[in-house]
Amino acid sequence: MSRKKAPKSVVKRLPVYLRILDNLIRRDVEIISSRVLSDETGFTAEQIRKDLAYFGAFGTRGTGYNTSYLREKLLRIIGLDKQTKIIVIGFGHLGKALTRYNMNKNPYVKIVGAFDNDPNELHTDIEGLQVYSMDKLSEVIQKEDVKVAILTVPAEVAQQVVDILVENGITAILNFAPTKLHTPEGVYVHNADLTIELQSLIYYSQEDEGRALKE
Amino acid sequence: MSRKKAPKSVVKRLPVYLRILDNLIRRDVEIISSRVLSDETGFTAEQIRKDLAYFGAFGTRGTGYNTSYLREKLLRIIGLDKQTKIIVIGFGHLGKALTRYNMNKNPYVKIVGAFDNDPNELHTDIEGLQVYSMDKLSEVIQKEDVKVAILTVPAEVAQQVVDILVENGITAILNFAPTKLHTPEGVYVHNADLTIELQSLIYYSQEDEGRALKE
Repeated sequence: MSRKKAPKSVVKRLPVYLRILDNLIRRDVEIISSRVLSDETGFTAEQIRKDLAYFGAFGTRGTGYNTSYLREKLLRIIGLDKQTKIIVIGFGHLGKALTRYNMNKNPYVKIVGAFDNDPNELHTDIEGLQVYSMDKLSEVIQKEDVKVAILTVPAEVAQQVVDILVENGITAILNFAPTKLHTPEGVYVHNADLTIELQSLIYYSQEDEGRALKE
Repeated sequence: MSRKKAPKSVVKRLPVYLRILDNLIRRDVEIISSRVLSDETGFTAEQIRKDLAYFGAFGTRGTGYNTSYLREKLLRIIGLDKQTKIIVIGFGHLGKALTRYNMNKNPYVKIVGAFDNDPNELHTDIEGLQVYSMDKLSEVIQKEDVKVAILTVPAEVAQQVVDILVENGITAILNFAPTKLHTPEGVYVHNADLTIELQSLIYYSQEDEGRALKE
């Protein structure tokens, strides 16, 4: 598997394939063609074949993909074959929403803790989630050996929080704070800025644009 | 302005430029070079020049960009020169978080209503936001002439809600429901699936990956 070669656009599609496979397996579908996978995902069959080819040859020409086999491979490729521990920093409305959202919808990851400065938030919440004060951040990251963090703190404090995360070995950050974060080589930041999402959406909401740029 | 030619990746960067310009103008910076803009955004100066070139020539060779002028142009290009009305459908934790998030952080859009089936939610909330029952959806969209919707309803009901949105003239949907939505030509759906975001992030959290694919 030459995973390094896979572009971000491909990596973004892997979880989509995984979800489809989960559904198919739930419906006892054992084999799926890239054409059917295409109907389910909305990506072209060729796109799907190309995407998967980055990681190996998983299909049998003519017959298609074995759903369970492909699912196992995808879990390994994405890194979901073992449950991933994550922390949520900032337990305001967004932090709470993300936590609940994730608890309900994502079997592959476990939120091992949330962090906030508001003393009123410092209690066990949602399905036994522990909410810690910010000064417990280093301790929990190291004790739980966490590599992935979701950041929902205010922009003004985001960088100083990130510095603590990096210091303690976090290698991937999903950042909801509307600010540019500085991280060293080897730490991946994905900016999930909802304002940006919304503003670029508005671009497409304009009459001709929607039609012109629909994907 | 040949806006149709601009790829999604470019469109996604426009709001980033806008935010930087807002900050610069707040700091009374009147002229900015693409190099400085590059330092602020993290995109290369060449990338920035190429991005803006899709929409016209805004800079003066040697001197750079007039911040206020470029900001005005960007507002027009993105469609933020007039305030955009949006609705939020589903007023659970995520809907509430997005609403508050937006109210605080986005001066260019106005949430004119939220919709939920939970009778307990049907009251005026956050900064006078009106929360309606789902059966008011068509009425409000038409009365307010809304084109943009944020969808945070459960996956099972997402498509039927989308059909109502499309029927009533919504042209852009930010979809948080983890399901594939079917829309006609001219209706743009941006899937902001947090599970997908998180799973692709986990891919990068693995030792070699972060280093290999950091951007």
